[in-house]
Amino acid sequence: MDKEKLQAMHRLFNPRSVVVVGATDSPGRVGYNLLESVLYGGFKGQVYPVHPRLTTLQGLKVYPTLEEVPGPVDVAVVAVNQFATVDTIAQCGRLGIKAAICVAGGYRETGDDGLRLEERLVSLARDYGIALVGPNTLGLFNTGADFYSTFYPLRLPKGRVSFVSQSGGIGLTLMHKAADEGLGINKWVGVGNRSTLEISDYLAYLAQDNETDVIGIFLEGTEQARDLVQAAARIAKSKPVVIYKAGRFAANDYVALTHTGTAAGSYRMYRDILMDQFGVLMVDSVAELVAACKALSISTLPAGGGLGVVTHTAGPSIALLDVAARQGISLPALQPATINSIKDAMGQNPPVVLKNPLDTVGVGFEAGIYGRVVNAMLDDPGIDLLVAIYCLHKNWRFPSAELLAAQQRSGKPVLAYYVSTWEACREERQLLQSAGVPLYTSPEEAAAAVSALIHYGGREKHAG
Amino acid sequence: MDKEKLQAMHRLFNPRSVVVVGATDSPGRVGYNLLESVLYGGFKGQVYPVHPRLTTLQGLKVYPTLEEVPGPVDVAVVAVNQFATVDTIAQCGRLGIKAAICVAGGYRETGDDGLRLEERLVSLARDYGIALVGPNTLGLFNTGADFYSTFYPLRLPKGRVSFVSQSGGIGLTLMHKAADEGLGINKWVGVGNRSTLEISDYLAYLAQDNETDVIGIFLEGTEQARDLVQAAARIAKSKPVVIYKAGRFAANDYVALTHTGTAAGSYRMYRDILMDQFGVLMVDSVAELVAACKALSISTLPAGGGLGVVTHTAGPSIALLDVAARQGISLPALQPATINSIKDAMGQNPPVVLKNPLDTVGVGFEAGIYGRVVNAMLDDPGIDLLVAIYCLHKNWRFPSAELLAAQQRSGKPVLAYYVSTWEACREERQLLQSAGVPLYTSPEEAAAAVSALIHYGGREKHAG
Repeated sequence: MDKEKLQAMHRLFNPRSVVVVGATDSPGRVGYNLLESVLYGGFKGQVYPVHPRLTTLQGLKVYPTLEEVPGPVDVAVVAVNQFATVDTIAQCGRLGIKAAICVAGGYRETGDDGLRLEERLVSLARDYGIALVGPNTLGLFNTGADFYSTFYPLRLPKGRVSFVSQSGGIGLTLMHKAADEGLGINKWVGVGNRSTLEISDYLAYLAQDNETDVIGIFLEGTEQARDLVQAAARIAKSKPVVIYKAGRFAANDYVALTHTGTAAGSYRMYRDILMDQFGVLMVDSVAELVAACKALSISTLPAGGGLGVVTHTAGPSIALLDVAARQGISLPALQPATINSIKDAMGQNPPVVLKNPLDTVGVGFEAGIYGRVVNAMLDDPGIDLLVAIYCLHKNWRFPSAELLAAQQRSGKPVLAYYVSTWEACREERQLLQSAGVPLYTSPEEAAAAVSALIHYGGREKHAG
Repeated sequence: MDKEKLQAMHRLFNPRSVVVVGATDSPGRVGYNLLESVLYGGFKGQVYPVHPRLTTLQGLKVYPTLEEVPGPVDVAVVAVNQFATVDTIAQCGRLGIKAAICVAGGYRETGDDGLRLEERLVSLARDYGIALVGPNTLGLFNTGADFYSTFYPLRLPKGRVSFVSQSGGIGLTLMHKAADEGLGINKWVGVGNRSTLEISDYLAYLAQDNETDVIGIFLEGTEQARDLVQAAARIAKSKPVVIYKAGRFAANDYVALTHTGTAAGSYRMYRDILMDQFGVLMVDSVAELVAACKALSISTLPAGGGLGVVTHTAGPSIALLDVAARQGISLPALQPATINSIKDAMGQNPPVVLKNPLDTVGVGFEAGIYGRVVNAMLDDPGIDLLVAIYCLHKNWRFPSAELLAAQQRSGKPVLAYYVSTWEACREERQLLQSAGVPLYTSPEEAAAAVSALIHYGGREKHAG
């Protein structure tokens, strides 16, 4: 990506000043919501609403035309209809505005007339060198700059994961699921029709963005998908990228992607070929995408693929073993010294069977004992990361402090899977996740997290 | 199942009196928690703690031996160790107690000695005709009778779904996920080692249980799994059964189950063969199991497989279409009359494209318009059930009242997928679900729900 485009994209996500063209006083209109989005989000730069007749809006002076806006403008937020949007982009070009967010639909997604209109929009953006988001997009936000430009006024917890979504609705679902999971977001963009800025452009920008540690992508279509997966794979060598591709049962899409030339085989087979060919992590649901991004953003990476599991009820580790078996992840046998340490840790009544996964049975409810067992497991040289499963119990507390201490002591990743409602472990989640231990409440999401960490952390050791 | 066994199982879940053998005053012990579980859950029958030396426990008179308990006993909750459990069951037999819950582990799961001990336990239970839960189990509960006998003291919302789990930990995960989803439970059992009561026994009991509308099952192993799936399939003809089988990547398990005689092929292929052969619904995660049971318990069943989708952002319907494509579910084209009604409903600015799935774009944020569009879709004779997708917005309210009215008016199932955090739609969930509209916040879980409803409702029409 050339330096000029990168600079335009940087300004797009970090504007010093914004004009909202088509701002209105009618709360049901997009122009109202976009202006409210910028203000409600706490943007600290200059905001210039533009409307031909109104004089003030949401406490701000309104300018009758774009030309009359007094200061320099980094981003034009364009809330007018598809026809007026084209004129606005021409104006932006003449005025030297280098970035625009165009939310109106009514372009190529509606047929031939729309396509022709979109082609005019694109050629204007190209001629003037405007980085154009959309059209037909929900917009974008950057919590790091308190800049929210969507028609959903928002203010969200900050984090280090950025999302690029080909669907606004799935993008919003990801955002809400992240909130439900206690995961902060850095940047978020609904790419819309991708007329001038392609998904690969956002990826290239986020790849070099210091505020983004992990990139999560939702894809709908597969047009240019192979290029996209290749681009993601290049980035994934230095920064984790996780892709959720919808259209799971359209095996033909995957034939095109993998160049296998035959439509026989399942979606999962093609997905696995893609993962092997390109090394980029692919997942199968909103829940897995958020689970994977959460682990990659909160935890350190393991040095290898040796998974340890501590639990006090056997079943939940089975879903983890499912993942382990599929990925070739090993659950290493424990060394004799580890088993001795575990026996010491458990005092009077150690369980009869001491192996990995380690079922501490009833003894393990005592947080101190649980913590010592976790320490013993983490001391084992074969174990690179550990999942600590603990069941909510009225008369016992969660071993969160012990897990944090164990993680710090060992320097190895620790994930918690609390068998609990979210409500009953909300404070624990805050405590754990702010200190580097991601928390899950389902076996499949914990498994997706393990899978993601080993994918990006333990590949070399695991392959050898 | 013979009448005597059925009667014993009925008493097991609906005891008039309970003895807790091994009740103690030490809060860290299972015997304490089991007694507390019975009392904390609000059990209204007689409770007799048994301990050789203590005189009162948690406000109750304690009896030194089982023999000295004054009244008749329906269920013995046995909290002593694996050896004393065997003696206790012998005593129960001599005293005519016909049901017992044995939580202690230390049997076949620990090796040959344990296996021999378990054989003694089983032969005693057989000789005396005792319905024995476990051993090595978390226990069971029945919210309908306020009877909770697990070592996790609980008190849960009542509902009409019952769960049978081969794993206590996954059983607890299901229970907590159900709570997170606002889904009440009727009965729940962790089957433990299944020495005398097999999963098929619980199924046979729940099949004829008037308080259970839907049965959810978690399976670990596949020993006897084919029989089990066949039993479930027989029940599924009259009452929905949903199975989540772990060990997903152990394709060999499925070869045994499906009798295909070859290990080539994916887990999904085998699962689909099972579904086709037996007609029982199989799912792939805790989240899908709860999503499916929720829909089947809260909603009516559709008359056919014609799925309608209303949304105001295109993306989320793609995951539904994934399911549709896989299952051969149709998204029928809308009739001209339906399209006219939708145009009328949307007033000034109908979207350019009117088809199923119907994207109402911005206009659809107004709940009244959204509701009229939903009515128009439901009036279409090709549509048997409808998913209403709506995105949380600071300035608009959810169309919950409209969805309830539309469902009542049409008599067709309506499912809501709100693109929202759970926190932001908690009250809506209560409102919707108590009146027959299940609510989801993820596309995959909404898809699992649609899939479940069409599996059990619309099969005939869909096949034809």
